[in-house]
Amino acid sequence: MIEYADAGPEVRAVYDDIMATRQTDWVNNFWKTLAHDPATLRRSWEMLKVVMAPGALDALTKEMIYLAVSITNQCSYCIASHTASARAKGMTDAMFQELQAVIGMANETNRLAIGYQVEVDEQFKTSDPL
Amino acid sequence: MIEYADAGPEVRAVYDDIMATRQTDWVNNFWKTLAHDPATLRRSWEMLKVVMAPGALDALTKEMIYLAVSITNQCSYCIASHTASARAKGMTDAMFQELQAVIGMANETNRLAIGYQVEVDEQFKTSDPL
Amino acid sequence: MIEYADAGPEVRAVYDDIMATRQTDWVNNFWKTLAHDPATLRRSWEMLKVVMAPGALDALTKEMIYLAVSITNQCSYCIASHTASARAKGMTDAMFQELQAVIGMANETNRLAIGYQVEVDEQFKTSDPL
Amino acid sequence: MIEYADAGPEVRAVYDDIMATRQTDWVNNFWKTLAHDPATLRRSWEMLKVVMAPGALDALTKEMIYLAVSITNQCSYCIASHTASARAKGMTDAMFQELQAVIGMANETNRLAIGYQVEVDEQFKTSDPL
Amino acid sequence: MIEYADAGPEVRAVYDDIMATRQTDWVNNFWKTLAHDPATLRRSWEMLKVVMAPGALDALTKEMIYLAVSITNQCSYCIASHTASARAKGMTDAMFQELQAVIGMANETNRLAIGYQVEVDEQFKTSDPL
Amino acid sequence: MIEYADAGPEVRAVYDDIMATRQTDWVNNFWKTLAHDPATLRRSWEMLKVVMAPGALDALTKEMIYLAVSITNQCSYCIASHTASARAKGMTDAMFQELQAVIGMANETNRLAIGYQVEVDEQFKTSDPL
Repeated sequence: MIEYADAGPEVRAVYDDIMATRQTDWVNNFWKTLAHDPATLRRSWEMLKVVMAPGALDALTKEMIYLAVSITNQCSYCIASHTASARAKGMTDAMFQELQAVIGMANETNRLAIGYQVEVDEQFKTSDPL
Repeated sequence: MIEYADAGPEVRAVYDDIMATRQTDWVNNFWKTLAHDPATLRRSWEMLKVVMAPGALDALTKEMIYLAVSITNQCSYCIASHTASARAKGMTDAMFQELQAVIGMANETNRLAIGYQVEVDEQFKTSDPL
Repeated sequence: MIEYADAGPEVRAVYDDIMATRQTDWVNNFWKTLAHDPATLRRSWEMLKVVMAPGALDALTKEMIYLAVSITNQCSYCIASHTASARAKGMTDAMFQELQAVIGMANETNRLAIGYQVEVDEQFKTSDPL
Repeated sequence: MIEYADAGPEVRAVYDDIMATRQTDWVNNFWKTLAHDPATLRRSWEMLKVVMAPGALDALTKEMIYLAVSITNQCSYCIASHTASARAKGMTDAMFQELQAVIGMANETNRLAIGYQVEVDEQFKTSDPL
Repeated sequence: MIEYADAGPEVRAVYDDIMATRQTDWVNNFWKTLAHDPATLRRSWEMLKVVMAPGALDALTKEMIYLAVSITNQCSYCIASHTASARAKGMTDAMFQELQAVIGMANETNRLAIGYQVEVDEQFKTSDPL
Repeated sequence: MIEYADAGPEVRAVYDDIMATRQTDWVNNFWKTLAHDPATLRRSWEMLKVVMAPGALDALTKEMIYLAVSITNQCSYCIASHTASARAKGMTDAMFQELQAVIGMANETNRLAIGYQVEVDEQFKTSDPL
């Protein structure tokens, strides 16, 4: 991992932007690991900023969707870091518990639909959901 | 699949409740397939009603979390049915597109965190996220 | 896919053994596709025969475990073929329904354990389960 | 996690039932974590009791199917706890080794079927496996 | 999906670049679907061009790695499109068969390592693989 | 785990072959765990030697494909051991970083293709990719 003190100007610029955007004074290990590859570091951070910014969906809803993916994928680092982010953006205990219940149940019914080889209803069929 | 006309009273009671709750006049294939096992049908529907009801999270947010799990799991039936449900509860094109962007990016960064074997930061470490 | 009529002697020997072992007069598409690579065909079939043969676990239990993996992985071909195999080895409707219920619930509780980041109990800790 | 001493009556009732059903004098961390949300705790435990009770499939077969799902999903907590449960219900070393062999091979052939895009045989096609 | 004739200038610019880069006269459905969201279309295409360009790894090795991920994730669209791309970049039948064999075996041994809860050897332990 | 000193002749023969093939003087935990089941140990090692040997694909390309699968499956043991193997076979930092970038992006676009339910193009449709 590359610490701020050891980083070149391109990496420092990203670290500075991460801390300014998040209003914190530290950078988490994910970015310090990516910093070996400054182009990927910058590109990933730019992408994250755009995708996670409030838009048609607010920032907390986006964090919870991110967490739903990370729990389904069972990525420990991602669960730890995005639980913290969602907390920082206002996720209460009750919201966290409902989030878990939806994720758990979706994983259950996903397998029931698959195991029983349920055919898609005509009413749901569409090649293009837009 | 068991159609309404061929269903016994226990199954019909669930079908009636599904249609009343959703304000529709049809039952989708998932439930008609589970109906071979009336106890599981009833238990799953009761659970779904409780878990998906608005609470600390509103109903549309829950549908989008459900969809995030189903897309990550790649369950076609579940994606088709819950895209329709989310649409019915107000998901716009812009919301759907942002949802996709978050799901896509979360799946990417999940693998980067895993592949680089990133250590969890002390600040994120907790044995109990509550 | 390589049909029996077009197969060389090495492939025919495997096809003959598949049909003799299963007491059927046809070979399913999985093997006809692998037949482009006769060494992999033979090695995979030999492995399958050994692993799926009755031993400490009976043949039907093994088929249901296979199906549990295929449903969790959401592999359509594998679900279709191993549901047929399990049926042929005696899986009843009631057994199939209980199998689905266990698979569904395991997928749910897996995500609850992960999402809540539950710590492994001292009583369960072991680096070697044997 | 909520310990017995700190639990309210609704949570204690579930803890008591867990210990009575399992004939043990302790409750594992999964339930102590869910206990923050007493309704989910009770609902999940009730469901688990019903689904894992001996029926058309015996209790040990159900534990091994549960384990097959947890290994395929790579949920460490679930693997640790259900290996212990299966051991307690009579899984021998030889049974555990055959279980592993089936799970490993199913994961291999699942990917071969997918990678070669094998078409489902007419003989296996069915929209409803019941 | 948005066809070239119906696309605005931002989308057409991306379509033109896709066809020029690939030296083809058509655009595949993936991009025509993303085109509803021109910013994501452009960003995803720019990213893909950078990541898949020959560098420390040649273009065909990258396509086979892409295919290994898609087969492990069981994404039909991705398998179909990247098998075609890999073929176009020189993947022979023998290479495809060895690719399948590695993917299959990796999925098998992954589950054996997980199921037996194998402890990471001291020799392999590292918090940072770089 | 079974150490060399405690192993019977069948297990020792495999350990000897592992060390000779890899030109090392130790055996990693994966094999020492499988050694409880000597037949599976031998069969798995024989298979690994055949599948990972240089052929139409060179040994390093095979290690990187193996790593792509293990990262997508999120198997910690497998990532640690195969990162070490790939390093030993010549994977540089730049190659590792490009490998990560492809794996990350493939996981992202896989979910976009799935979430948008993109139809397979006629040009890609084939029941048999060989």
